[in-house]
Amino acid sequence: MTNPTAAMLVIGDEILSGRTRDANMHFLAGELVRHGIDLNEVRIVSDDRDAIVTAVRALSEAFDHVFTSGGIGPTHDDITADSIAAAFGAPIDVRDDARALLEAHYARTGMELNAARLRMARIPDGAALIDNPVSTAPGFTLGNVHVMAGVPAVFQAMLASVLPTLTGGSPLLSQSLRVFRAEGDMAAQLAALADRYADLSIGCYPFHKDGVFGANVVVRGADGGRIDAAMSDLARDLGL
Amino acid sequence: MTNPTAAMLVIGDEILSGRTRDANMHFLAGELVRHGIDLNEVRIVSDDRDAIVTAVRALSEAFDHVFTSGGIGPTHDDITADSIAAAFGAPIDVRDDARALLEAHYARTGMELNAARLRMARIPDGAALIDNPVSTAPGFTLGNVHVMAGVPAVFQAMLASVLPTLTGGSPLLSQSLRVFRAEGDMAAQLAALADRYADLSIGCYPFHKDGVFGANVVVRGADGGRIDAAMSDLARDLGL
Repeated sequence: MTNPTAAMLVIGDEILSGRTRDANMHFLAGELVRHGIDLNEVRIVSDDRDAIVTAVRALSEAFDHVFTSGGIGPTHDDITADSIAAAFGAPIDVRDDARALLEAHYARTGMELNAARLRMARIPDGAALIDNPVSTAPGFTLGNVHVMAGVPAVFQAMLASVLPTLTGGSPLLSQSLRVFRAEGDMAAQLAALADRYADLSIGCYPFHKDGVFGANVVVRGADGGRIDAAMSDLARDLGL
Repeated sequence: MTNPTAAMLVIGDEILSGRTRDANMHFLAGELVRHGIDLNEVRIVSDDRDAIVTAVRALSEAFDHVFTSGGIGPTHDDITADSIAAAFGAPIDVRDDARALLEAHYARTGMELNAARLRMARIPDGAALIDNPVSTAPGFTLGNVHVMAGVPAVFQAMLASVLPTLTGGSPLLSQSLRVFRAEGDMAAQLAALADRYADLSIGCYPFHKDGVFGANVVVRGADGGRIDAAMSDLARDLGL
């Protein structure tokens, strides 16, 4: 049985312009590993309707799930919801269920539910709301696309709402070995190991820091016993 | 005059599996901003030949430049060079100029230029080598695709070799204002500002931390005078 596949779409000029580092990708990757969903691709596009539409369509077709982050706030540059609707040809407007959530929230906090904030209740027809326990304004799932906020605390809370609803597979297990030896001096052994353990993924990630050469060898797969065996072979083959 | 456009392709299972955070994207984004090249899209794909070929072709066609990172070392999982060659239908083999660099390097360091390391001299026909002052094994430029290492120190050194050869445009300038006010309470002013300054990009990036709501408003563009004017208007419109 193979695991479900997934892609992430990060919507954000602020990352492409080098202003901020994305924090959600790394978090999502870790959560999906634990949930047994394989993250196969990530795309980062700017706050541009055509770019979002093109990417969402391509990823939605190619993978079982698409997780998006960013662009669902109240300001003029928040165009994700409308772009997702456009990608699927779904009508979109302020929806009663989302408006009710916002009305209750702003009544509670004493802030005004003005026209800008009401934009956060724009939800495509046919979408299911994603709960936002942090700041109320909901995300949504349309088809296989899960649309979430860019603010890390909100993204994480929304993901916690969504993940339990998705069927996962086998968690991806991994073990790693830090070897203080140049990659090129163990490449033959690693290639032979990868051949013998074709069911596992064997990666070699070099580092050189302060004049010391080395590499982290990472063995990944669904079967812990096989990983144990590969790691034993690896230590033996490298004479460790 | 519009700036040249660019995309980045990060090749790396280790990022998609959540093991490491990519460091090169943020660095590249900052360098491109200074050089006047607009980074429009980033994709991260796994160490998979088909995935690399598909992404390289799409990005190479859509943008003026493509910068790749990762997968050009000596181990079995380093398949970037062959995948780039396949994407362009270019023959690839150990090339004399690259082999000569490696021979000199390994003679100097007393290490063996074995079969695994010789793979790093596999360069597609027609590609120009990218100098690697850190660890010698070169990157290469094929068409509009610049193929560089994943190790950050090497990626940065290769980028320093490549960037001066590329025609840049106007550096993207930006100013930002940290406003301790909820996004929804200034969305109308920001939308009006964005309308008045259609030549600038005006982004609003909310934060809430320790119970305090606020947002960073960032104004970007090529004309510093226009940005100054927009920032003055912004402060006035928000009553700051």
